[in-house]
Amino acid sequence: MNAPVNINELDVGFDVPAVPGMDEADIQTPCLVLDLDALERNIRKMGDYAKAHGMRHRVHGKMHKSVDVAKLQEELGGAVGVCCQKVSEAEVFARGGIKDVLVSNQVRDPRKIDRLAQLPKLGARTIVCVDDIGNVADLSAAAQKHGTTIECLVEIDCGAGRCGVTTTPEVVAIAKAIDAAPNLKFAGIQAYQGAMQHIDGYEDRKAKTDIAIDMVRDAVAGLKTEGLECDIVGGGGTGSYYFESNSGVYNELQCGSYAFMDADYGRILDKDGKRIDDGEWENALFLLTSVMSHAKAEKAICDAGLKAQSVDSGLPFIYGRDDVEYVKCSDEHGVISDPGGVLAINEKLKLVPGHCDPTCNVHDWYVGVRNGKVEALWPVSARGKAY
Amino acid sequence: MNAPVNINELDVGFDVPAVPGMDEADIQTPCLVLDLDALERNIRKMGDYAKAHGMRHRVHGKMHKSVDVAKLQEELGGAVGVCCQKVSEAEVFARGGIKDVLVSNQVRDPRKIDRLAQLPKLGARTIVCVDDIGNVADLSAAAQKHGTTIECLVEIDCGAGRCGVTTTPEVVAIAKAIDAAPNLKFAGIQAYQGAMQHIDGYEDRKAKTDIAIDMVRDAVAGLKTEGLECDIVGGGGTGSYYFESNSGVYNELQCGSYAFMDADYGRILDKDGKRIDDGEWENALFLLTSVMSHAKAEKAICDAGLKAQSVDSGLPFIYGRDDVEYVKCSDEHGVISDPGGVLAINEKLKLVPGHCDPTCNVHDWYVGVRNGKVEALWPVSARGKAY
Repeated sequence: MNAPVNINELDVGFDVPAVPGMDEADIQTPCLVLDLDALERNIRKMGDYAKAHGMRHRVHGKMHKSVDVAKLQEELGGAVGVCCQKVSEAEVFARGGIKDVLVSNQVRDPRKIDRLAQLPKLGARTIVCVDDIGNVADLSAAAQKHGTTIECLVEIDCGAGRCGVTTTPEVVAIAKAIDAAPNLKFAGIQAYQGAMQHIDGYEDRKAKTDIAIDMVRDAVAGLKTEGLECDIVGGGGTGSYYFESNSGVYNELQCGSYAFMDADYGRILDKDGKRIDDGEWENALFLLTSVMSHAKAEKAICDAGLKAQSVDSGLPFIYGRDDVEYVKCSDEHGVISDPGGVLAINEKLKLVPGHCDPTCNVHDWYVGVRNGKVEALWPVSARGKAY
Repeated sequence: MNAPVNINELDVGFDVPAVPGMDEADIQTPCLVLDLDALERNIRKMGDYAKAHGMRHRVHGKMHKSVDVAKLQEELGGAVGVCCQKVSEAEVFARGGIKDVLVSNQVRDPRKIDRLAQLPKLGARTIVCVDDIGNVADLSAAAQKHGTTIECLVEIDCGAGRCGVTTTPEVVAIAKAIDAAPNLKFAGIQAYQGAMQHIDGYEDRKAKTDIAIDMVRDAVAGLKTEGLECDIVGGGGTGSYYFESNSGVYNELQCGSYAFMDADYGRILDKDGKRIDDGEWENALFLLTSVMSHAKAEKAICDAGLKAQSVDSGLPFIYGRDDVEYVKCSDEHGVISDPGGVLAINEKLKLVPGHCDPTCNVHDWYVGVRNGKVEALWPVSARGKAY
């Protein structure tokens, strides 16, 4: 299992949608296509921003689940490592050569804790989040069993409404327990405000992030009083990284979607009231689809439906076209309004998915294109690693 | 590639969520679990119904994408074969030993047509849908090239609003072109009313299906006038099969979701006004999830979010529990309202997904359970076969 893939043995149209060297026009649809030039520009831009603001950037690997993209983010964007959400995902990144991995989530199941404790043996600095003092002994026991060290961040729920504690005394109590536990190391705070990232207005997002920053500042001060220093104060996403970067208290960003962009993120507004996909970030990820039926004059049917994307955050838009519109989605079909009847059978369209993370999660491959040619075929390395 | 999986080499928690013989309590979450007793009862029940009504049942393999489930449907339910939606999916079923495969969809891309024409070489009767006379020559040329026969159904759009023609003259014109084309065989009509299946009221569904049946009856008569007999008049889903079975014109059912059930189908009503998941069909498919955080008293966080299911048709419900409710879904987390604070960390819950087809599509494995033990581990054989 998990042997390296020999792409010369792959069957285009069955195993894979394309192979390197192929013309872009010959890619089998539906599949994910990456515009490599746009991707590299996005990665360099965020890397430059983080460097200029004295921030480390721990890229969010759960967005793309790709070792290849993570390595590009390290190489071109100066990323210090990745965060991800599942132990099995972390194992993929560690096995793939990523040396600094944060599971930015709670790990409670005994088997998962045991696997987490072995992650350092794969050569990766291993960090996890904790929001319950009852978790500390289990993590410590597993790390002792395997003779490893697990670094722990206390997770603050600073507005996302998911995991995390909400008061500084809770943060301090958990941090002290971590600090006292054998084979655990208190490493700081995780405070990602996930619920605010997709609010359209810049000032509205800022107001929510200000609340988060105040909570984090208070927690860091409370910990300092107890002699506990935070190596990592992490958080910040594509809709907020400038706020955390200028907070004076966060030191690590955890952006994911900036690299690929999607329709839902694209429509949020920057400080000048401009959509962030209109200058700040480029669309680098596309769901390539083909027209497969046009039996009705004003309606075309394409081959990308619910099995090729997630529509939890709305339908995709058709890139570079305002004459046709993706209006409906069923399991295997997309309905495209084509009032002018301009679409031809087998014509290809580039969809910008509503939400990149769960869309990438249904695909096995990224097809990287440049100058009309397929240049790269990257596995969605951690696809299916949900455990 | 595609070698048989040796489950003894698989790593539980990385490659797979469970292995046969394991206690149900040890399954790694999130993952899909099949209640094998319920599944077998559903399969037998639909098989008995079809037999009693003189209908063939071509089960919809796009729902489960599993060779194992399809074979169970043949064995226990007397299924005559499968339908599916993609050529790559059809290849999986044919390679897996299914001998009668309908791609209940249009196939237009030249490479896909070429693959389709080779499907009979895998030992499968190969049937495809056509809704455009312009497709006929391409299908015929590929079948001639490979020395095979492709059977063709003319697809009627009888209300779904996707692929398919809408008038009998169009049906007849395409059927005549198929009949005249070398290496193609006119095999009948495809008329699946996909848009009506999920309407709650029985009489409302009947009214929509009656329109479809009238269209199909007219088309069959029109074809007969031209000397063209329909071997297959196919359609009918979990929300309508009784209408098609009693129509006197359909002869093949194409039900999929009845075998697993889901929350969206479950809430439609039978002729007595009762939910169809309350007696007609059993919930056999569950998304098993674990509580991973309970830092807030009235809210638990579980490990099944958007990467473990599709929420296009609504959120899942928690099976067998009315004291807790799944209220929100993000990429990796589900938020569960727990007003009584009754849920414990690592407690497992069985979610009934909103929509089974795209939920199965994000998983690699089905874990079959019976009497508290894992009995089967079945790959989602055609997962990722979107091309």
